[in-house]
Amino acid sequence: MLQPMIRRLDLAPLPSEALALEADCFIVVDLLRATTTIATLFAAGLDHLLVVDDVDRAREAARKSGDLLFGEVGGLPPRGFDHGNSPFEATAAPVAGKGAVLFTTNGTLALCSLAPRGTVLAGALANAGAVASVAAGYERVVLVCAGENRGQRFAGEDFLAAGVIAHRLASLVPEIQLGDAAALAIRIASTPDFEHLVRATNHARALIDLNLAPDIAFALREDTSLTAPAVVASGAGWALLQGALSG
Amino acid sequence: MLQPMIRRLDLAPLPSEALALEADCFIVVDLLRATTTIATLFAAGLDHLLVVDDVDRAREAARKSGDLLFGEVGGLPPRGFDHGNSPFEATAAPVAGKGAVLFTTNGTLALCSLAPRGTVLAGALANAGAVASVAAGYERVVLVCAGENRGQRFAGEDFLAAGVIAHRLASLVPEIQLGDAAALAIRIASTPDFEHLVRATNHARALIDLNLAPDIAFALREDTSLTAPAVVASGAGWALLQGALSG
Repeated sequence: MLQPMIRRLDLAPLPSEALALEADCFIVVDLLRATTTIATLFAAGLDHLLVVDDVDRAREAARKSGDLLFGEVGGLPPRGFDHGNSPFEATAAPVAGKGAVLFTTNGTLALCSLAPRGTVLAGALANAGAVASVAAGYERVVLVCAGENRGQRFAGEDFLAAGVIAHRLASLVPEIQLGDAAALAIRIASTPDFEHLVRATNHARALIDLNLAPDIAFALREDTSLTAPAVVASGAGWALLQGALSG
Repeated sequence: MLQPMIRRLDLAPLPSEALALEADCFIVVDLLRATTTIATLFAAGLDHLLVVDDVDRAREAARKSGDLLFGEVGGLPPRGFDHGNSPFEATAAPVAGKGAVLFTTNGTLALCSLAPRGTVLAGALANAGAVASVAAGYERVVLVCAGENRGQRFAGEDFLAAGVIAHRLASLVPEIQLGDAAALAIRIASTPDFEHLVRATNHARALIDLNLAPDIAFALREDTSLTAPAVVASGAGWALLQGALSG
């Protein structure tokens, strides 16, 4: 039987706080929509995903590899991209056994900047159970809210989704020590109006204005993916993820 | 009758986010204990308060002015200080009509760094009504959680207290637009176990270990001060506050 070793769970409301924390496992949460899309692509059989922090670098990488190019600027797919950053669309993308490239405004930036610091997972409601199960094997875990405006602004939906993952992890690990933000996020994620709170966030309302409401409904579904995508290699401005299935 | 002009209320879970936001009024919240102590000192008749971001500068300023010196390092008054950072103790401090100097680890740092950006108020539960009433006269208000570790770490008690002030302000201003963090803080500050959540924070538990539990009980009391202390002058590493009574 797995002996959980985790002793401490923190939650960073902004990526900048995560960079000031010591941990052996970071879970980046960008609910709307990068990490939901990532969890969904791997559930659809994707083999590997290159995430990059620059839109031109994304185009260049996809051109060289011939891989499908996913991503968004201002919520929409930039010129020359094969797909947007839509988890709903990702369910039907022909990615089984292949590689892909992803650029988004916040999620990929957080993944790239944390990559050198420890194990880095991409977490969302879509794979809450899978990432919690993998994270239960680590001693110090930090949930990182990817935020808005290149990670400079707090995003409520990331905090709420991180609260759900924190709750799962706390259920798996009886004596877990919770930092303040993790405790508050668990508290608010357990309220009956959770879904309403997500839909009321600034980012959710912006997506609704772009006719992307189906992505919000999809992002709210828990455990549609049994994968815990993890960074397996990284460099300046890029990280390569593979989608380990959870134990 | 006062016509409230405010259109937008944001809450910065860390001071770094506040520095990235445009606003005409910032309310720094350091519930345990700097801004509670500040509100209490002005309620006790203090005329002006010099807050500084360095302990030696605090000693020097108090020596030159002859003013009482308040503050803490690691929760306790440093060598040569007249008083700690205890709001409970501040209720009986002989400050009426006088000046004082304050150095604390997080609250004074946030006040000093935001001072050049707009109107800066010191807010806590002790003066929630007073600061909300003053802030209702501004167009863009940001509640700033002072945090821990020189503002690098999230502090739950600041987020919770900021939620109470946000709630007061939202009650005063019918059509206020709320940022994500303000909306979530209001939601969690309205829960019946608010006091329990404050007492369970990392900082509250550290104060209890230092036998400073009376300060927590005092900090939880709302509207013991009718003052809204505001920065009236500032420079590198210092800010001067005066305690305007709320309308």
